[in-house]
Amino acid sequence: MVFILNPKVKQEKIDGFMKSWEQKGFSTILSVGTEHTAVCLIGNTAQIDLDHVVHTTDIVDYGKRITEQYKAVNRTVHENVSTIIKVGDVNIGDGFFPVISGPCSVESEEQVLTIAKSVKESGAKILRGGAFKPRTSPYAFQGKQAEGLQILELAKKETGLPIVSEIMNQTQIDLFENVDIVQIGARNMQNFDLLKAVGGLKKPVLLKRGLANTLEELLMSAEYIVASGNPNVILCERGIRTFETMTRNTLDISAIVMLKQKSHLPVIADPSHSAGIRSLVAPLSKAILAVGADGIMVETHNDPANALCDGAQSLNLEEFSDLMRELKKRAVTEEKEIY
Amino acid sequence: MVFILNPKVKQEKIDGFMKSWEQKGFSTILSVGTEHTAVCLIGNTAQIDLDHVVHTTDIVDYGKRITEQYKAVNRTVHENVSTIIKVGDVNIGDGFFPVISGPCSVESEEQVLTIAKSVKESGAKILRGGAFKPRTSPYAFQGKQAEGLQILELAKKETGLPIVSEIMNQTQIDLFENVDIVQIGARNMQNFDLLKAVGGLKKPVLLKRGLANTLEELLMSAEYIVASGNPNVILCERGIRTFETMTRNTLDISAIVMLKQKSHLPVIADPSHSAGIRSLVAPLSKAILAVGADGIMVETHNDPANALCDGAQSLNLEEFSDLMRELKKRAVTEEKEIY
Amino acid sequence: MVFILNPKVKQEKIDGFMKSWEQKGFSTILSVGTEHTAVCLIGNTAQIDLDHVVHTTDIVDYGKRITEQYKAVNRTVHENVSTIIKVGDVNIGDGFFPVISGPCSVESEEQVLTIAKSVKESGAKILRGGAFKPRTSPYAFQGKQAEGLQILELAKKETGLPIVSEIMNQTQIDLFENVDIVQIGARNMQNFDLLKAVGGLKKPVLLKRGLANTLEELLMSAEYIVASGNPNVILCERGIRTFETMTRNTLDISAIVMLKQKSHLPVIADPSHSAGIRSLVAPLSKAILAVGADGIMVETHNDPANALCDGAQSLNLEEFSDLMRELKKRAVTEEKEIY
Amino acid sequence: MVFILNPKVKQEKIDGFMKSWEQKGFSTILSVGTEHTAVCLIGNTAQIDLDHVVHTTDIVDYGKRITEQYKAVNRTVHENVSTIIKVGDVNIGDGFFPVISGPCSVESEEQVLTIAKSVKESGAKILRGGAFKPRTSPYAFQGKQAEGLQILELAKKETGLPIVSEIMNQTQIDLFENVDIVQIGARNMQNFDLLKAVGGLKKPVLLKRGLANTLEELLMSAEYIVASGNPNVILCERGIRTFETMTRNTLDISAIVMLKQKSHLPVIADPSHSAGIRSLVAPLSKAILAVGADGIMVETHNDPANALCDGAQSLNLEEFSDLMRELKKRAVTEEKEIY
Repeated sequence: MVFILNPKVKQEKIDGFMKSWEQKGFSTILSVGTEHTAVCLIGNTAQIDLDHVVHTTDIVDYGKRITEQYKAVNRTVHENVSTIIKVGDVNIGDGFFPVISGPCSVESEEQVLTIAKSVKESGAKILRGGAFKPRTSPYAFQGKQAEGLQILELAKKETGLPIVSEIMNQTQIDLFENVDIVQIGARNMQNFDLLKAVGGLKKPVLLKRGLANTLEELLMSAEYIVASGNPNVILCERGIRTFETMTRNTLDISAIVMLKQKSHLPVIADPSHSAGIRSLVAPLSKAILAVGADGIMVETHNDPANALCDGAQSLNLEEFSDLMRELKKRAVTEEKEIY
Repeated sequence: MVFILNPKVKQEKIDGFMKSWEQKGFSTILSVGTEHTAVCLIGNTAQIDLDHVVHTTDIVDYGKRITEQYKAVNRTVHENVSTIIKVGDVNIGDGFFPVISGPCSVESEEQVLTIAKSVKESGAKILRGGAFKPRTSPYAFQGKQAEGLQILELAKKETGLPIVSEIMNQTQIDLFENVDIVQIGARNMQNFDLLKAVGGLKKPVLLKRGLANTLEELLMSAEYIVASGNPNVILCERGIRTFETMTRNTLDISAIVMLKQKSHLPVIADPSHSAGIRSLVAPLSKAILAVGADGIMVETHNDPANALCDGAQSLNLEEFSDLMRELKKRAVTEEKEIY
Repeated sequence: MVFILNPKVKQEKIDGFMKSWEQKGFSTILSVGTEHTAVCLIGNTAQIDLDHVVHTTDIVDYGKRITEQYKAVNRTVHENVSTIIKVGDVNIGDGFFPVISGPCSVESEEQVLTIAKSVKESGAKILRGGAFKPRTSPYAFQGKQAEGLQILELAKKETGLPIVSEIMNQTQIDLFENVDIVQIGARNMQNFDLLKAVGGLKKPVLLKRGLANTLEELLMSAEYIVASGNPNVILCERGIRTFETMTRNTLDISAIVMLKQKSHLPVIADPSHSAGIRSLVAPLSKAILAVGADGIMVETHNDPANALCDGAQSLNLEEFSDLMRELKKRAVTEEKEIY
Repeated sequence: MVFILNPKVKQEKIDGFMKSWEQKGFSTILSVGTEHTAVCLIGNTAQIDLDHVVHTTDIVDYGKRITEQYKAVNRTVHENVSTIIKVGDVNIGDGFFPVISGPCSVESEEQVLTIAKSVKESGAKILRGGAFKPRTSPYAFQGKQAEGLQILELAKKETGLPIVSEIMNQTQIDLFENVDIVQIGARNMQNFDLLKAVGGLKKPVLLKRGLANTLEELLMSAEYIVASGNPNVILCERGIRTFETMTRNTLDISAIVMLKQKSHLPVIADPSHSAGIRSLVAPLSKAILAVGADGIMVETHNDPANALCDGAQSLNLEEFSDLMRELKKRAVTEEKEIY
């Protein structure tokens, strides 16, 4: 951390400022220039609230953080080796590119089984399905709740596919006992109590980026989970909110590359929620594979026109099968083992 | 809701489309033009997922929602009368402009009592203080938790000021029994389970706008609370996330006017979190009063330089006293009873 | 265009409202519902200022535009056939994927010739180079100006590569006589006088999306050029401004797909300016090819560390050669003729 | 400027790095810490492209700019004294709060004279009117052009009000000989050739912030004008583009305070374009006065319902008169001389 001092500050105040940091266990370095004087702080600066220091003393004019605040999820602390997360027989990360698929919402046993069998046959390796649904309107369908999870478990038994579903608050944790991957939705990315709660689990957590959260904030939320004891975090880019209204969200495809440069965790993307439009799902999926992601999550439905939720962005089962074929064609070139 | 049909669709398909809506209880109107044909849907369209309809049938080219999805919080359903919410002797809304003040975080009994007595003397009518703190970093101070609430209750006894504090999840509801106003933070604006939970209370809820949430989404979140049985919602603008980095957030001052035009609920603003910089708090507070808000929430601290959280944006007690004087000078012109 | 009327408006006012539109040459349709009454307007509504109508009469409550304002660039008016733009032997659009490459700024004859020969050998088909440079700071290097264009023309003679360079205002048009493609930069996307001026040319115009312009605005700016007489417009996505600061801009990869769905014009992308970071250029280029774009524009430099401008995002010549090899590997699968 | 070095870099490379900067005339300071080594650069770093340095050498890991790039418009270089700009008898800045008013577009002599006389009587001190209009659609009304300027000059003669009008490109400069203040519109804020051109004038320039431009970029554009020889720049906040769609733009009211803290130039705001909705203009104007701005620019029209442009946001003459009365009531408290 570097502080640039107010040019009018007297030497004795500077001495006191430096001493106060040394008493907190930091090393300090003084750099005297012709126009400015700087103090560099060495030590674990992750806990320092930089804005606070700058705005509450007359000594400091500017301050800059130099090292990242996230430690456990930082690529550098992991000797630059990418993490592979295992879910049953499925690997996520570093050369493995699993496709997660299924309906936005669990609607019925028949619906989920039909979809699960079909996407498995097309090559999907993990089944997704929403039992608890965060909806903007209180009048919209809120999901099948606990019954929805039971239907997913049944589909798991029938097909052998591991399942992923979204948890909405920590009181639901016991209900997710048989769910293989617990998903934290975009709106809960900074629900810190929930992050701590899933940090107490051993199973993988799929952490979606919030609509308006920076990559640094996403990594800090992952840090919450890892620091609470669970190292199995999968990051998921799912589109951010911008001024553009022609698509529901703006897929931040560069984020996938940056996250992999900054962290050792696997990074997947969700083309369905990014676009909100069915015709964009296949082209975006190909782009996500090409850019170097570790997987995708794609919404499918046996009857999109009658889906209770997000039918607009769901592929039907034939479209999904076509997409898998397209992705497989490209996987060899990308040196990914697709599934 | 208006649907513009695909020009190539045959009449019998249109007839089927209209009949399917009528069977769901809607009235339909067909408008045949020279280039386009439109179907208008009359009825409770709040539950219809518009994107879904457009993207899942070949019949419809475009669709537009005409009436607002929020009903209970809509100004029109309230005969255009503004709601006044009562907290003890304090009125919020429609000519009353209470100032809520106190520390970002509860740190100690002494700190809270010092601040509470001082802001009361300066004219604040409600005491704020964070006991549970949402922090981006897992390594940052997370608040005094339950003990923090007890300290606030003590300050309430000593000063008579009602208290407001942020709840972070629904398991904490019992802890807030003696808290007069329950605050939902920006990151929880779409934590729908929490919204439903506070909808089961009778006491006022201060609902902060999320960093990247539209005004319509804020009103829909208020609708969750009201639809769950609690009509006492106070809306709070607290700055949105934009491309500008010189301020922490961008205070959306127009939002205050729009919210009051669209809803009968009281609307306050938080100049401290909007700016993140102490020197902006006083000018923004004056602007918020001038634009027609129903109150402000301002962070104060007896010793900002040593605050455990957000000291950068806190006024010291003398600055707060000066601000109150400035606001009182302006209140008469604005026809507000300030307190 | 659909207007929803104020429920309190009397029939005679509605009649007058409809008559006023009919006198302007529109057909009108009245739809009377149980709660709302709507008037649909049929005709060339592109010239109507919708906000204006809504906010200046008491008759209308809401209004919605149904058809796109852009006509000449609209895919539908072109019978859904994609335009191919020819520059010498090079085709842009519909199965052809030319790579445009060269330095951000023209610095010297030697520099440009070295780069031109190398990128040609690697497979680039068009040479780019900035002679007039828009720079945020008045103290930064502003480009070689007219001399820069002469250097580009020399490189064209030596290598046979057509050249593209950015024009900054309409007084420069004569200087661009021998430039094959005239580029309109992001900051000039809504410099309407310049758009009209290049609309008077016969040569292709490469129109870059502004940092904060919607896709609809980009298409309207293209419409300016086409409506002024020049149908040869190439659209270019180059990253938009969002809240995220880890990358310089956010490449809106979905925009490429949407633009191709909405318009018949070719759409290319610029991975260099999108990211602003060299290590992102190759992965983003692969994603842009995979998503279905009609080409890319990539900055290269023979000595990025000493480039006078944007060295941070330039590939060196070997990296570019590697990138071309990677793209060629993928072109077959994408059914693109790469060059 | 501070560079944090790659921990693996050898001492001799560091020595070479420092020497290379010293040869360019900078002083350097080396700070060796336990984990990181930093080099501070002292001198005129405004011309250094920071990203470039960081991304093109292996020596540097991070870099941070410490001092602002804008010099001539910086408050500190002006001994913290606010600039007052004179236009005839009118002062702008530091205690004077002129109201600029008039139609969006000049439509006819009668229209402009009617409006000019009325707003003068209500207390406006400067007349605005658009002769050249930047319009998103090529099919929309593009302004009365040169004839429009003549009409404004006539109104100036009749009323004595100085006039302000928007210039769209530098070939128009001679046409603006009798215009008192030349306006640079939001879309031209980074039209650097135009900035240089008006930098050659002696008359005041009203520089509007671009829709998605940071405050730093706005100040750099002002720097272009001042560095070209014209110190008479008035900054104007007019709303930025965000995700919110209920208002046309988001008035960044904090920007007014920040700009005044950073620069000695006067800062005004435009509530009409910010909101795009007539009912917001009065409340926003009051907020702009309260926050400390040096003036406002408000669109008025004698017949908003038939305005050729932006009638939706124009006040009629009576509403403007009411607004002036409201502002005058508040001016005393704000210690502003309103006119």
